[in-house]
Amino acid sequence: MRSFLRFCPLFLALVPSLAQGDSALADYIRPFVGTKGGGNTFPGPVAPFGMVQLSPDTADDLWDNAAGYKYADTSIMGFSMTHLSGTGIPDRGDFLFIPQIGEAKLVPGTKENPDAGYRARYAHEQESAAAGYYQVTLLNNHVNVELTAADRAGLMRLTFPESEHASILTDLRHFLNGNADVPGRFKLIWSHLRVEDEATVTGFHLIGGWAKERYLYFAARYSRPFDGHRLYSNGEEIKYNTYRFRSRHEAAGTNLQFVAEYKTRPGEVIQIKVAVSAVSAASALQNLDREIPDWDFDRVRRQTRQKWNKELSRLQIEGTQDQKETFYSAMYHCCLAPSLYEDADGLYRGLDWDIHAASGFTNYTVFSLWDTYRAVHPLFALIQAQRDSDMIQSLLAHYDQSVDHLLPVWGLEGNETWCMIGYHAVPVIVDGFLKGVKGFDAERAYQAIKTTAMNPDYDGLSAYRQLGWVPCDQENESVSKTLEYAYDDYCVAQIAKALGKNDDYQYFKGRAANFTNLYDASIGLMRPKDAQGHWRTPFNPHFYDDDSRTNDFTEGTSWQYSWYAPQDVPGLIALAGGKEAFAAKLDQLFTFHQADTNKGMDDVQGRIGEYWHGNEPSHQIIYLYSYAGQPWKAAQRLHEVLRTQYGNKPDSLSGNDDCGQMSAWYIFTVLGFYPVCPASDYYVIGSPSLPKAVMRLSNGREFTMTAANLSDYNIYIQSATLNGRDWNSPYLPARAVREGGTLNFQMGPEPNNIWGVNAQVPE
Amino acid sequence: MRSFLRFCPLFLALVPSLAQGDSALADYIRPFVGTKGGGNTFPGPVAPFGMVQLSPDTADDLWDNAAGYKYADTSIMGFSMTHLSGTGIPDRGDFLFIPQIGEAKLVPGTKENPDAGYRARYAHEQESAAAGYYQVTLLNNHVNVELTAADRAGLMRLTFPESEHASILTDLRHFLNGNADVPGRFKLIWSHLRVEDEATVTGFHLIGGWAKERYLYFAARYSRPFDGHRLYSNGEEIKYNTYRFRSRHEAAGTNLQFVAEYKTRPGEVIQIKVAVSAVSAASALQNLDREIPDWDFDRVRRQTRQKWNKELSRLQIEGTQDQKETFYSAMYHCCLAPSLYEDADGLYRGLDWDIHAASGFTNYTVFSLWDTYRAVHPLFALIQAQRDSDMIQSLLAHYDQSVDHLLPVWGLEGNETWCMIGYHAVPVIVDGFLKGVKGFDAERAYQAIKTTAMNPDYDGLSAYRQLGWVPCDQENESVSKTLEYAYDDYCVAQIAKALGKNDDYQYFKGRAANFTNLYDASIGLMRPKDAQGHWRTPFNPHFYDDDSRTNDFTEGTSWQYSWYAPQDVPGLIALAGGKEAFAAKLDQLFTFHQADTNKGMDDVQGRIGEYWHGNEPSHQIIYLYSYAGQPWKAAQRLHEVLRTQYGNKPDSLSGNDDCGQMSAWYIFTVLGFYPVCPASDYYVIGSPSLPKAVMRLSNGREFTMTAANLSDYNIYIQSATLNGRDWNSPYLPARAVREGGTLNFQMGPEPNNIWGVNAQVPE
Repeated sequence: MRSFLRFCPLFLALVPSLAQGDSALADYIRPFVGTKGGGNTFPGPVAPFGMVQLSPDTADDLWDNAAGYKYADTSIMGFSMTHLSGTGIPDRGDFLFIPQIGEAKLVPGTKENPDAGYRARYAHEQESAAAGYYQVTLLNNHVNVELTAADRAGLMRLTFPESEHASILTDLRHFLNGNADVPGRFKLIWSHLRVEDEATVTGFHLIGGWAKERYLYFAARYSRPFDGHRLYSNGEEIKYNTYRFRSRHEAAGTNLQFVAEYKTRPGEVIQIKVAVSAVSAASALQNLDREIPDWDFDRVRRQTRQKWNKELSRLQIEGTQDQKETFYSAMYHCCLAPSLYEDADGLYRGLDWDIHAASGFTNYTVFSLWDTYRAVHPLFALIQAQRDSDMIQSLLAHYDQSVDHLLPVWGLEGNETWCMIGYHAVPVIVDGFLKGVKGFDAERAYQAIKTTAMNPDYDGLSAYRQLGWVPCDQENESVSKTLEYAYDDYCVAQIAKALGKNDDYQYFKGRAANFTNLYDASIGLMRPKDAQGHWRTPFNPHFYDDDSRTNDFTEGTSWQYSWYAPQDVPGLIALAGGKEAFAAKLDQLFTFHQADTNKGMDDVQGRIGEYWHGNEPSHQIIYLYSYAGQPWKAAQRLHEVLRTQYGNKPDSLSGNDDCGQMSAWYIFTVLGFYPVCPASDYYVIGSPSLPKAVMRLSNGREFTMTAANLSDYNIYIQSATLNGRDWNSPYLPARAVREGGTLNFQMGPEPNNIWGVNAQVPE
Repeated sequence: MRSFLRFCPLFLALVPSLAQGDSALADYIRPFVGTKGGGNTFPGPVAPFGMVQLSPDTADDLWDNAAGYKYADTSIMGFSMTHLSGTGIPDRGDFLFIPQIGEAKLVPGTKENPDAGYRARYAHEQESAAAGYYQVTLLNNHVNVELTAADRAGLMRLTFPESEHASILTDLRHFLNGNADVPGRFKLIWSHLRVEDEATVTGFHLIGGWAKERYLYFAARYSRPFDGHRLYSNGEEIKYNTYRFRSRHEAAGTNLQFVAEYKTRPGEVIQIKVAVSAVSAASALQNLDREIPDWDFDRVRRQTRQKWNKELSRLQIEGTQDQKETFYSAMYHCCLAPSLYEDADGLYRGLDWDIHAASGFTNYTVFSLWDTYRAVHPLFALIQAQRDSDMIQSLLAHYDQSVDHLLPVWGLEGNETWCMIGYHAVPVIVDGFLKGVKGFDAERAYQAIKTTAMNPDYDGLSAYRQLGWVPCDQENESVSKTLEYAYDDYCVAQIAKALGKNDDYQYFKGRAANFTNLYDASIGLMRPKDAQGHWRTPFNPHFYDDDSRTNDFTEGTSWQYSWYAPQDVPGLIALAGGKEAFAAKLDQLFTFHQADTNKGMDDVQGRIGEYWHGNEPSHQIIYLYSYAGQPWKAAQRLHEVLRTQYGNKPDSLSGNDDCGQMSAWYIFTVLGFYPVCPASDYYVIGSPSLPKAVMRLSNGREFTMTAANLSDYNIYIQSATLNGRDWNSPYLPARAVREGGTLNFQMGPEPNNIWGVNAQVPE
């Protein structure tokens, strides 16, 4: 029997360091961060940006368990192959495996009564997770489960007690937010299963979920042949009834299970290699056989940990153990999405459901663009430029396959979910282009960008083009759409300018000013306007409704969205009557006490007054204090958020991690600057919270940040130097970062009312 | 306006000859043969063995309308892309198109009230069909519809009246035996649709029908851009509701329709090119663009007619116009299945749902083997050897993909339907191999054959191997299975012998004798026996039940199946007590009057006593008179069947054509000989009914049959010569045919009681 770890204290180096000294940054990763509360992360192993995320699921029927696992749950349904990280909407959780002892159960049972089904009880004391590794001992049957993952394939190591009746169930019906005949749940449209030989199974399901038509195949190879096997459909074993032949080796339907049966010796290890493909079972087998040719669990784990070391080494920091765990767990969560979406041979299923070859690039999916355009992709542009290029090329491939000639809005495994608003693939592409991300044809990208921005059908865009705003009597979320279109249009203008398309530059620059059309000076806030130009009346600027069908704002209020014109914060300030008035109103945002009487409060996470850090519309707001000449207030609020809404514990994330955006905010913020306006040529300095960080840029250069005299109290910038020269502006030139160099802060316990107060916002 | 034919009399050269003189055998084709009654053929255009069968459907909800069209119906639902020919079970009927004038209806309506939906009234006076061509004028809207087909693509030519509101509906919900929420009907599992551009649509559906998981894509290009288009799901137009974006250009679901809208000038022609693929929409487009690059309807029609001329020219006959129409329509129906099943690039979706390349062969599907092993493939072995080779290689590819390691039973578009009994891919392969069909590896084929014959799971085969019969207490249809296994085993023995596998030869030769185990001498008939060796008691040898779950016989009775041991008819005769007794019992078969009180009489077609020519178990029986020394009785019954159950009219076929088996019986029979025992080295002479026929063999030789003095009354063979020498045996050596030569019959009005009476059956 292979030894496995029991009772390892949860957050203290769960597993022994696998080797190679203190450069093992991967050992700082705490996969449980975000699994408790609303973070919606998953604890199972995954390679950086990997296609397989092998992880335990504790529920498959809850909207708010979007990654399958909730730390507070006390039983595990099993281990499924794929997961999303941090989204607010569930999907994936494909192909669940669970070992059993005794008569194999075919249904999961319930949290309340796990013994009614194949659910297994577990306790965090007998559970551990690390980079590329997860382990749990199932309390009811004493099977120890260990998981590791390569890019497209995973490996399960199951250590069984002695049993005449051990088995491993594969439930094809399992996926997230499905599996119950309840309206509103997702639908398993079809599935099939083939027992290819006595140690190999392949299968398929077509899921009508968030991704409305998602094809996924899997392959599984077992380390020893089954002693027996059974197939079930709708709970009945598939047997030939002597009427019309039925194979014992294949099944098709909407509720299929496979049971591999074994007699096990004490401590016998049975391993299962698993892989997925959106193309075919043959491709899943190919992925599996290429990536895990043998049964060396520890090698797979070691290689994946090495990959994590490599990714994390792009940012080297000094700090406490807690700070390093928090920081590198944030980096880890930034490197889970977009995820790889092509087979080992480069083929993938596109938006048009055809099989495409990713030629000259690596194809990715899971584009949570409304979130990730803010800080994730700006971070990638600096330290993951090759991947950012691949991601941009993936966006362009999606565009090529789009029957609507639109760049992705929220792309998920060959599907467009149309989730959220705006066309935020544009800032991703433009920010990458302007920050030096290479490898794609700028002219081709520009055509995709412009065509998207001129689409005649999409989300009120025609009216926006005609009127200068999205009219609230024709379109939901009209204010948020208007404001975000205006920002996206700024990005179009920036690339048009760079490519010398002056007419387009002027045109989109004009559209970028559209945010002013919804500013109601009488209330000093953004306000919905109808097609005739009348303000919505009556109007409650604190009104929030999580149902966007009855809201003029997207997951927020007017008070939150009224700060959103990153392309022209000086313009916003002018509308507000100057910096003092603007800052005073900002103060109100953080102190307004909103009653919980609004309809739905799903997005009200990480609340400081009406600032809700747990959701993205708030993410740039604190930095606006720096524009308003009061950077010390930014420092106060940033440190407050860092201190109270991040950490290295399961419940450390205050809101959905949203494919890394919450984490990317953390990374930029602790480094001392943030991309308030991606696609612009500057970052905004807030207040660092690490004594030193070295950014290894993709262009081969290094950018170093130091913060002298930093402490929990010394959070105020007293002075700064950039490459040795005084730097008295909160606007950090992007070029200065890109070219490498050193930014030194001198920190102190009191606000410095002079530093950074009078700088001009770059054009 | 292009001219089109109206009021063309139905069976008198419906359409003007397109060119090239009297060698145009294709002009004898009467596509309507078999469309009235139980023939289950379809009238629409198809290329020889083509993948697209573009044809009108008059019902989609009836089990007994397996090819979509019933001549007696008075309204047409529309024109769908794919059809089966002659099967007893419906499937296909994919992707229906129907032109409309006025408000587009989305549901078909009913036969009783066609005006409630998109059904169109029609009359046979305004309908015509020929090789590669079908035409109908829709009476309610005066649209003239013309159809033609290439191999993988079809072309529709629609001639519209003037209208502000013309449209063409595509109903993705339509397919045969589906479309209604009735238990037992087939299920549309999923579908999607994309409006690729303003004149191109692609789509997909996944059907759980006879083929339980059938993936089919289509592509359609319209000759002019739509003036508008609409998508519908569950009867509601797909529109963005300002909540979450919905594309106007794509849809997914289980009830989708597409409407292309036009304003038409008087007599305006709009054409639609359509193609299918089991691989992808891109492949369907590729098939379409490669095969029909332009809009030349007449060229496509002409080329397909030429292909038919080429196929039909393999058999040149002399006869009356009626005889030629009947004969060439029979050949036409023999050349519709198996049908092409690979895209223009050679890719197809296999039994394992993976995409395979047909490398070195052309892949076919629709293997109705229980029917076609009898006469269709033996005919192909003579005059379609290349295709027969491709078909055999298709069977072997299916075997390679079979998780059960079984050759096909009834293969349908990447599916195994498990329909009917036996493993009759074996006689197809062995007969081909022994008759000189080349191009496949005999050893590989043998391994597939033997593995199939030794399968541990299939239909009572284990018990059969152990006991020597399929026990009736363990398995339905046990007698038919035993008898057919024994014949298939004879075929295995024959190829084992040819390959020098003497042990296997002896073993399977032993199994081939298993038919004797079910012969109950006390009643002189085959009788079910249980695993203990007890006869089923009580037992009614005339009992028939169309539900095989309660029958020991397959679509027949003991009286019908008791003749089935083609591998050893002398053995059967010996069991019966000699030729006289055997012949006397045969006489009874044709005169026994069976009451219609049995449960279900579906298969009781073409009845002469208890001889039911409309179904396959009877097909070899008449020829047994020749073995019994009374060949004149064979002549009588053969001519009776030819005269009463075949012809050139819609109702001429007495039973399901079964992918050409009924027609192939006709072809062999009118030529004067029949493959009673495929894989043996002889045919059995019956009585010719054509004065002359020349068979252009695939090996380049010619075999000529003449019947001197033949008339409606002179049906008895008086004498015969083979290559100029007297031939006094009803057993015609296969080698004599294969090597080319001449068989001359001298016919007369009275039985010749000497000719052919005393010949020995070849070993």
